[in-house]
Amino acid sequence: MASRTSTLKFFSLLISSFAFFQMAMAGDPDILTDFVVPQNGTVDGNFFTYTGFRVLVGGAPPTAFKVLKASLAEFPALNGQSVSYAVLQFPSGTTNPPHTHPRSAELLFLIQGSLQVGFVDTKNNLFTQTLQVGDLFVFPKGLVHFQYNADSQKPVLAISAFGSANAGLVSIPSTLFTTGIDDNVLAISFKTDVATIQKLKAGLAPKP
Amino acid sequence: MASRTSTLKFFSLLISSFAFFQMAMAGDPDILTDFVVPQNGTVDGNFFTYTGFRVLVGGAPPTAFKVLKASLAEFPALNGQSVSYAVLQFPSGTTNPPHTHPRSAELLFLIQGSLQVGFVDTKNNLFTQTLQVGDLFVFPKGLVHFQYNADSQKPVLAISAFGSANAGLVSIPSTLFTTGIDDNVLAISFKTDVATIQKLKAGLAPKP
Amino acid sequence: MASRTSTLKFFSLLISSFAFFQMAMAGDPDILTDFVVPQNGTVDGNFFTYTGFRVLVGGAPPTAFKVLKASLAEFPALNGQSVSYAVLQFPSGTTNPPHTHPRSAELLFLIQGSLQVGFVDTKNNLFTQTLQVGDLFVFPKGLVHFQYNADSQKPVLAISAFGSANAGLVSIPSTLFTTGIDDNVLAISFKTDVATIQKLKAGLAPKP
Amino acid sequence: MASRTSTLKFFSLLISSFAFFQMAMAGDPDILTDFVVPQNGTVDGNFFTYTGFRVLVGGAPPTAFKVLKASLAEFPALNGQSVSYAVLQFPSGTTNPPHTHPRSAELLFLIQGSLQVGFVDTKNNLFTQTLQVGDLFVFPKGLVHFQYNADSQKPVLAISAFGSANAGLVSIPSTLFTTGIDDNVLAISFKTDVATIQKLKAGLAPKP
Amino acid sequence: MASRTSTLKFFSLLISSFAFFQMAMAGDPDILTDFVVPQNGTVDGNFFTYTGFRVLVGGAPPTAFKVLKASLAEFPALNGQSVSYAVLQFPSGTTNPPHTHPRSAELLFLIQGSLQVGFVDTKNNLFTQTLQVGDLFVFPKGLVHFQYNADSQKPVLAISAFGSANAGLVSIPSTLFTTGIDDNVLAISFKTDVATIQKLKAGLAPKP
Amino acid sequence: MASRTSTLKFFSLLISSFAFFQMAMAGDPDILTDFVVPQNGTVDGNFFTYTGFRVLVGGAPPTAFKVLKASLAEFPALNGQSVSYAVLQFPSGTTNPPHTHPRSAELLFLIQGSLQVGFVDTKNNLFTQTLQVGDLFVFPKGLVHFQYNADSQKPVLAISAFGSANAGLVSIPSTLFTTGIDDNVLAISFKTDVATIQKLKAGLAPKP
Repeated sequence: MASRTSTLKFFSLLISSFAFFQMAMAGDPDILTDFVVPQNGTVDGNFFTYTGFRVLVGGAPPTAFKVLKASLAEFPALNGQSVSYAVLQFPSGTTNPPHTHPRSAELLFLIQGSLQVGFVDTKNNLFTQTLQVGDLFVFPKGLVHFQYNADSQKPVLAISAFGSANAGLVSIPSTLFTTGIDDNVLAISFKTDVATIQKLKAGLAPKP
Repeated sequence: MASRTSTLKFFSLLISSFAFFQMAMAGDPDILTDFVVPQNGTVDGNFFTYTGFRVLVGGAPPTAFKVLKASLAEFPALNGQSVSYAVLQFPSGTTNPPHTHPRSAELLFLIQGSLQVGFVDTKNNLFTQTLQVGDLFVFPKGLVHFQYNADSQKPVLAISAFGSANAGLVSIPSTLFTTGIDDNVLAISFKTDVATIQKLKAGLAPKP
Repeated sequence: MASRTSTLKFFSLLISSFAFFQMAMAGDPDILTDFVVPQNGTVDGNFFTYTGFRVLVGGAPPTAFKVLKASLAEFPALNGQSVSYAVLQFPSGTTNPPHTHPRSAELLFLIQGSLQVGFVDTKNNLFTQTLQVGDLFVFPKGLVHFQYNADSQKPVLAISAFGSANAGLVSIPSTLFTTGIDDNVLAISFKTDVATIQKLKAGLAPKP
Repeated sequence: MASRTSTLKFFSLLISSFAFFQMAMAGDPDILTDFVVPQNGTVDGNFFTYTGFRVLVGGAPPTAFKVLKASLAEFPALNGQSVSYAVLQFPSGTTNPPHTHPRSAELLFLIQGSLQVGFVDTKNNLFTQTLQVGDLFVFPKGLVHFQYNADSQKPVLAISAFGSANAGLVSIPSTLFTTGIDDNVLAISFKTDVATIQKLKAGLAPKP
Repeated sequence: MASRTSTLKFFSLLISSFAFFQMAMAGDPDILTDFVVPQNGTVDGNFFTYTGFRVLVGGAPPTAFKVLKASLAEFPALNGQSVSYAVLQFPSGTTNPPHTHPRSAELLFLIQGSLQVGFVDTKNNLFTQTLQVGDLFVFPKGLVHFQYNADSQKPVLAISAFGSANAGLVSIPSTLFTTGIDDNVLAISFKTDVATIQKLKAGLAPKP
Repeated sequence: MASRTSTLKFFSLLISSFAFFQMAMAGDPDILTDFVVPQNGTVDGNFFTYTGFRVLVGGAPPTAFKVLKASLAEFPALNGQSVSYAVLQFPSGTTNPPHTHPRSAELLFLIQGSLQVGFVDTKNNLFTQTLQVGDLFVFPKGLVHFQYNADSQKPVLAISAFGSANAGLVSIPSTLFTTGIDDNVLAISFKTDVATIQKLKAGLAPKP
């Protein structure tokens, strides 16, 4: 009987431990060891190396705006190290639409081309700049920002650093118009009519 | 000559100290005293009391959505205490438009009426709920969320708590369409035409 | 033999994972996801809603001082969001005895009645105030504070917000006089006699 | 005229910078330099040395419980370093009365004598221990704890470390009974009569 | 079939939970409970007591520099409490070689003897001091520091406190010259020849 | 007379505010505004732009290892944003000597050439890797690490991101051998003779 109780308790605790795993993914604590060891225990130089950006070398430029990320999901060694990268590629005339990163500022380094950038602070001031090769621009934590390659010919390549292993991304167009928020709520919020909202939703809907 | 140098250095340092004051306002450090003493040195029970919400008692309900805040700006004793409040009032049919708080989650407590709420996570999942009196709803840190009083008759009163003395507010409609972001950037970002962007801007522009 | 070792190691690690679950409950880290997913994986609008305060609506007022909490234990979605609530109800002549919250300041919002409040800082200064409906009062982090409904007729209702999902409570009377601290230690500490200590203990002891 | 405005603005900003100095004292931020430079600019080995504990060497033992602190106030180089010390001396039969440290755990190291220690957690569990020379005991953050030299002959010497440059001290007896909290509030809170409260206050009042 | 999938998922999650255990050891989050409960659930006064320093009482002095630690590994109750100790013993003429602690400042308290101490800041300024009994010295976070008992006769005893449960230790001589870093890299870095590097490596190699 | 007192107090406070400025530079607190406003109040797009890396575009490659930094000192808008960059240039056969960053991990992105990298953890394990163009490597917080361009012909260009506005640099060779640490302390610490220490010091001494 005691053993039956133990078994039940065993499974109860086991299930609890599953719950915890998910929380683990959720946690970015200051760590008390040098780094966070992965489950299989094999930690060597490869563990601290990320090769997913090699595709950029000699790769054909994309035909639409494209982001490559090296964050916690792609590069587990970043766990607890509070830093990550993204590489941004802009063909002519493309934008990185207005968005926020909930957990970090972004420090963009322009490698190739010319880029228009901007952000809006919480007092509704718009700050913009046209960057040239070699320039850095910092987008402060949690604010709405965007980038635009206005050049009709030259593509843009930029590297962005973040002070978090998982800065997160809230893309405003898709958040607002592709997730099913009620038309009426959006129409009232944007002081427009439902038809305009539906037109925006249609334009942003995934193509079949 | 030495004295001239000193004087220059004096002013240089003085100016530096101005820079610092502004930073002070910017800082929410863990504090090493019980509370942060204001400049005039008069600290008594009144310093820890905020009376700006008394206007709610017996006041006429507003005719448009209205927010009253008790944050660092209104209530300096919150400095270093990592907590603040807002009171939200929704006449029938009004919304608190999609927005984010860059520095805190929001815990809403519905005091009167019925309220539709929702937020979108960074994987573009929409979570919605219709709250009744007495319900709490938590909007996680940094995510886009909104509230809507769909009832045609009853007003709504809600209290929201934040885990920061200055949670900040990024209102999406005004951030996007009243700050001067280029029409073309917005049209490309929202996959629509410039005319639609201009219509949205016109609708949200302050009335003369 | 190898397999036996593996099995032992398996259980050893398994037990370790139990240890971790308990630590999970203990942790309030800055999170790297939008929210912390619970074990069963069902996350919808209900997960972010807490209905435990509905009992307040139309409920009979309590006959003794009463606290309703919406913290991590009652509302798991608060995990990682650094905010929580308590509702305080004071019949005439009752107190919330001197206490501290080890992990947060408290921001009290007086909804009904008139309330005397006070706290003592680490330099032994007492700050007091008599609040009227609509007033806020902030009790700084970690300091001893109390509230008292001195009105002989009207009950008091207050809402308190905390900048932690689990602010914690150290109630001074029960901590000192109901947990078995040695009479002699208390008598020396309070510069009184053992008889007085025993009288205080008797008064605070749970009634059979 | 412009110059007059400038002058006014100058003084306004200057006054603001005074406000900031007080806040500086209040702040324990993670620092971005190696250490915090004091105002006079003279930083040498002496700045990082504290000699205030030399009085312990060969000094006569005290006749009452005594604390020597090396925290931010006594040793400014600790600013931003998140660590401090206290030395505790207990003549026979004396206590360090129940107290809390709002900003840190305490790690006590018993150097001489035998010491009874205890603390109460937020679930009202009392944990006690009798320490012998060489023992360490950790009092968790923010909880009420006490120490007692029950030995009728030997004095006690202990060193305590804190994980904050200014852990703070809330001494329960003096906080409750020497700061002017209303007798009635205390009597209700401790479920006793006003006479008992007044007796306790009298016993703890400073002797003339 | 469904059950097979469940079983696989079961093991997959189980393995994940192992990964987490290791992370647990890695984490020093601010905790949301009073303390972190160990796996066996037995928490009493002994759990909060560390007796590993009793060997110092009446023990023979060591013949080489020796460190005794009471950190997270030796004393699990320190988990989440952000404080730890080390005891340092220096026979005549011995050093604690240049080293850093990645996660904390060090506050040294000299109990016996006379000690030469020093550290170098990030601007390459050397700060030194000769301490006498009773003196404290703070080594700021993350900087290279050392201690030396220059006295030809008297041993030194010192206690060091850290503002982390696991400050960590990077000993420079062994890090550089006993871990297999390429001779050539070291020779170029130290602007010397390979022979000198090899001589240093030989001197620091563990004796058979 | 009163005015004289005021004047004195004025200067006393003024001096205090200078002390604070230095602390300001020292502080990397979580900020409560969107960004930290500089002293002159002129905040536009240029404030958030750093052009100091333009020299890299078309510039001649350096003849010795060279670091260009964009941290708090060079780019004040990074204040409170917890992110910064460095650009590293390695001619053939050069190293970035063993060093630590006290306040951040480093995430290196190899843009050109082939680079040997390595770090040593606090258990004296050496982790090394040879990186090719496009690879990332993370050096965990506070650990000793180095980089080496072993190629006899091709130069190396790398970009490193840090999760702090001022990661700091402790270069081991110069810290140990150019700051005046006593020869004897170093000889004992490195288990070598004074002559070897003096040879190392001579090699690293600045050339006249």
